[in-house]
Amino acid sequence: MPHATQTPAHQSVAILIIGNEVLSGRTREANAWFAAKTLFNVGCKLSEVAIVPDIQETIIKTLQRLHQQYDAVITSGGIGPTHDDITMQSVANTFDVPLLEHAETIQLMTNFYGEDALTEGRRRMARLPKGAEPIICEQSICPGALIQNVYVFAGVPHIFASQLESVLSHFTTGKSFIRQEIEVYLPESSFAQELSDIQKSNPDIEIGSYPGRCGKQPTGKICLSGIDKERITNVKNQIEHMLKDKENHENQ
Amino acid sequence: MPHATQTPAHQSVAILIIGNEVLSGRTREANAWFAAKTLFNVGCKLSEVAIVPDIQETIIKTLQRLHQQYDAVITSGGIGPTHDDITMQSVANTFDVPLLEHAETIQLMTNFYGEDALTEGRRRMARLPKGAEPIICEQSICPGALIQNVYVFAGVPHIFASQLESVLSHFTTGKSFIRQEIEVYLPESSFAQELSDIQKSNPDIEIGSYPGRCGKQPTGKICLSGIDKERITNVKNQIEHMLKDKENHENQ
Repeated sequence: MPHATQTPAHQSVAILIIGNEVLSGRTREANAWFAAKTLFNVGCKLSEVAIVPDIQETIIKTLQRLHQQYDAVITSGGIGPTHDDITMQSVANTFDVPLLEHAETIQLMTNFYGEDALTEGRRRMARLPKGAEPIICEQSICPGALIQNVYVFAGVPHIFASQLESVLSHFTTGKSFIRQEIEVYLPESSFAQELSDIQKSNPDIEIGSYPGRCGKQPTGKICLSGIDKERITNVKNQIEHMLKDKENHENQ
Repeated sequence: MPHATQTPAHQSVAILIIGNEVLSGRTREANAWFAAKTLFNVGCKLSEVAIVPDIQETIIKTLQRLHQQYDAVITSGGIGPTHDDITMQSVANTFDVPLLEHAETIQLMTNFYGEDALTEGRRRMARLPKGAEPIICEQSICPGALIQNVYVFAGVPHIFASQLESVLSHFTTGKSFIRQEIEVYLPESSFAQELSDIQKSNPDIEIGSYPGRCGKQPTGKICLSGIDKERITNVKNQIEHMLKDKENHENQ
């Protein structure tokens, strides 16, 4: 499902993870992490992630907020056949449209499973909000859905990944983000002021500082990201120079 | 810092993860996952997780929403000494109070680092929103903060875990949640209706169904959680019985 060429790619996106299993600590969230890496590489900003339980009212409220606030929303989870799968209904309610059986999907399922095996549970998975396009992927016979700017994906990681892949052109801005890192062996507090000055002079490059430790020795990473490789290298050189000065000073 | 005995434990909590590094896919989120497991074990419901970037306006807006909506909010990240650490200032602005240097923390830092090493960066880490209590833990000389129902923790995982540990009594309801799982070798759609009926008859037990696969073979897990072990076992028996009937039927 390629985006029509005249439609510009989404610049910002939010992810809505739906599932009690994540909030109860049963399952470690993996799809937002996968999408974060994928979107970074195609130059689309992931602006927010929300994780909410399988409660229709909460899903609708959160989706309404995110759908208005960002270029696009990707939801993950809750599109299977069981009672706790309430995402398609919640999305339909969000846009005040009914859920309708998608004839092509029913046909695909009938071919795949045979007519006898088309249980009520499977039919449930063929229902899409009215006006939605199905999102077909290689890993599942049951489609995701695209309605307005909301992409409804499965929670099962290999299906989620395959669905994202199938619409990745919608998020591909043509300006990939690039990241470079610097290893640091000084405490953050010793260079915080100078790093802040470098950030202020170079607002096009996002500079983050992430402390760690190795035994009692402070270590850390300074992370630079942006879209212009040459600019990143330039700012990286400034920071490395500053850190060298600090180290020499510490060793005096 | 034990909760005063008359203060009831928080029943519901939201977690606010602050950090560009998570949204850009550089770092896999770990603290919400750790907290989810810990809170489940002490019987406190994790109701929502939000992950937002290092943008003050976004942090404040999200914090205002969560603070009003849930019993308590835990924030993670952004309390170090560098320019991208803006959480304490954002929390202070949320409650319309100034950031003040915390005298006891300055004293602790002076004893620990020596007076000469009390750089501007370190002093920054001793500033708390006016009226906040410091959250002291074993893993860091720099405190977190508790103001109203908002707990401000570090993003570095071993410090986050230690800070949560030090205030865990605030979240310990006395009714631990319990989880039991059933392995399933049938497609979800074949038992969805019956599982839904069992859920309806047993609203005190939360039943989730999570599909997986083993080669082309459908496998999955049905997960039961609640606070009453005997009730969970009872409902588990009902589900196992239902699944056995289904399997026998499939094999006929």
